[in-house]
Amino acid sequence: MIVKTQYVTFDVEVSLQSGAKFGPVTLAYETYGQLNEAHSNGILLLHALSGDAHAAGKHSPTDSKSGWWDEAIGPGKTFDTDKYFVICSNVIGGCQGSTGPASINPHTERRYGLTFPVITVADMVNAQRLLLDHLGIEKLLTVVGGSMGGMQAIQWAAAFPNRVRSAIVLASTARVSAQSIALNEVARQAIYADPNWNKGDYYDNDRPNSGLALARMIGHITYLSEASMRAKFGRRLQQREHYGYDFATEFRVENYLKHQGDTFTKRFDANTFLYITKAIDYFDLSYGHPSLAHAFEAVTAKMLVVSYSSDWLYPPAESKELVRALLHNGIDTTYVEIKSDYGHDAFLLEVDRLAELTHDFLARVQHDGQPHHPTHLVMGRHKEKATS
Amino acid sequence: MIVKTQYVTFDVEVSLQSGAKFGPVTLAYETYGQLNEAHSNGILLLHALSGDAHAAGKHSPTDSKSGWWDEAIGPGKTFDTDKYFVICSNVIGGCQGSTGPASINPHTERRYGLTFPVITVADMVNAQRLLLDHLGIEKLLTVVGGSMGGMQAIQWAAAFPNRVRSAIVLASTARVSAQSIALNEVARQAIYADPNWNKGDYYDNDRPNSGLALARMIGHITYLSEASMRAKFGRRLQQREHYGYDFATEFRVENYLKHQGDTFTKRFDANTFLYITKAIDYFDLSYGHPSLAHAFEAVTAKMLVVSYSSDWLYPPAESKELVRALLHNGIDTTYVEIKSDYGHDAFLLEVDRLAELTHDFLARVQHDGQPHHPTHLVMGRHKEKATS
Repeated sequence: MIVKTQYVTFDVEVSLQSGAKFGPVTLAYETYGQLNEAHSNGILLLHALSGDAHAAGKHSPTDSKSGWWDEAIGPGKTFDTDKYFVICSNVIGGCQGSTGPASINPHTERRYGLTFPVITVADMVNAQRLLLDHLGIEKLLTVVGGSMGGMQAIQWAAAFPNRVRSAIVLASTARVSAQSIALNEVARQAIYADPNWNKGDYYDNDRPNSGLALARMIGHITYLSEASMRAKFGRRLQQREHYGYDFATEFRVENYLKHQGDTFTKRFDANTFLYITKAIDYFDLSYGHPSLAHAFEAVTAKMLVVSYSSDWLYPPAESKELVRALLHNGIDTTYVEIKSDYGHDAFLLEVDRLAELTHDFLARVQHDGQPHHPTHLVMGRHKEKATS
Repeated sequence: MIVKTQYVTFDVEVSLQSGAKFGPVTLAYETYGQLNEAHSNGILLLHALSGDAHAAGKHSPTDSKSGWWDEAIGPGKTFDTDKYFVICSNVIGGCQGSTGPASINPHTERRYGLTFPVITVADMVNAQRLLLDHLGIEKLLTVVGGSMGGMQAIQWAAAFPNRVRSAIVLASTARVSAQSIALNEVARQAIYADPNWNKGDYYDNDRPNSGLALARMIGHITYLSEASMRAKFGRRLQQREHYGYDFATEFRVENYLKHQGDTFTKRFDANTFLYITKAIDYFDLSYGHPSLAHAFEAVTAKMLVVSYSSDWLYPPAESKELVRALLHNGIDTTYVEIKSDYGHDAFLLEVDRLAELTHDFLARVQHDGQPHHPTHLVMGRHKEKATS
């Protein structure tokens, strides 16, 4: 599948959650499959921290890699492009084509850097709404995302009940924990500490690659589980039979992390890392509400919430908190905890289990002309089906 | 209790695990209580990464703080100084009085910096053995430590069966996991990335405090559990009622970590951090053996192994692996998992539970003129007593 990233610029002033006004806003996006005549088969994919609009296919036949969720998007796949019109856009604040801190501010003709406003998950979703209007989609069949993508899915369901028939929330949380904030803050501090960062004003000079690589290394540890690290690396050495008794990179896990950190600096902007992690830290749907349940009062979408047993970044307990708040409002919610050793990354890797769940869930969403199903909940591991 | 740190210099060349020779070696140490006539009441405390010889009491009546484990050491306490002669020494490689990278190399009259040899937990224990000889103690009643201190306790039991009657291993592991190595490596990278580090040659200039603070912040996250962070900080803001929509330190957990990082730089040396974390990463008692159990063949000490339910740095599963290897050799082993929300730090905080366990365990060790007890194991949570 050869795809092309598209760009649309909205010459508006959007109101941000902070109260600031901001514009214009360009969004990079890709689409897969065809919008049907009724405009009723739209699925919006929501990417995680380091993702982008390029979710599936290749930009050219010679590309070595496909989009970040190619396993799940295409003819006959989880998000079947023979049936659905799948959209993915880079978030506002991003660095892969959408307006972000590395973009040129048209008012000053200089890059925004730290003059870019602090954005939130709500702001990301508001910008995506402009894209839906542009594409002529009044109501999406579903919104789906993992990690920060799941936060956007929750936000869509809570903020725009008239525009989403369902939401699929993977490996996510309705309010980011102190531990996650702590890890994000340390990652940000690594960037601040890099002399090349220069308070965000580095675009004409050397980039803060060492700080950004460190930040990514911290992140990567949280994406894997202890079990997956043990299986993948254990205590195995890299190109050595015996300890070297020096400070070289000698354990394979060290080498892997260094490689992940270095590779990341080639495709990601350090300032975007700051803005996006801050948006994650701010994500707490109960903020400004008397309770989390209160924040979901307007939700009409059917919800599929999936957690992964070894995910310690957004552990199953946080999905369960979200599910309780949804059920408190009588929202049609399906919850499944998938047993997996892959840690947080499982949401990208456990494609087969997700395909089953999604197939059944979307079938049920599309049949909502039928008599209303009772609110139901599948909780526990090893459930083969999410729907009753 | 007013105590004084003592120093002893061994003008020898010790053989390190790496094969290198190193000397002379100075050790800083403190003692609490009196050595009895039979020299049979000695207890060696083994400190963790950032610890030192000052385990209990104060150096002067005006000190605001007591030693790092004052709650457990003193008359009538867990390690009762009315009965026991308690010794604690700063490890070789340390920065609190023992020879380490910040020490002056007498051969060059310059600080060692990175010319200091890479040391291991075995090297720490070998140096402590010199101290025991100096103090005239042929056989210790017990060796006890948590975290890296627990690694030293394991090493003592495995390497010197004739010199320890028992060992108490808290919140530790017999082989450090890939996840722990990963976290230590990221912390080291934070130090390497600090321009002030200058390949370890910074003692005449500004210190790499920003890198060291970052390293400490990463460490601190691993010492707490998700539950303890939630209870201690949650999503509470620092001196703000509402989100500031900026990059200030606004969540309390961020403020706490920053404070921990900054404070650490006032008392710790960045090079020592590198050497000690490397010693931790190298700790794998099965290294050079066909199996972990094989490494314990010579052990004669009674063993008390304690893990803490919410410790994710050295989780209970790793203590159980150690216990299985000990039991495989028929070693008298008691294992208790203490249910605690304090995470890795629980080994310092759950003093009351430890006092009970230790009291019973040491009573049994001292009665070993009695008929031999069968090997026994207490596994599981909420056990009130470790001995049958």
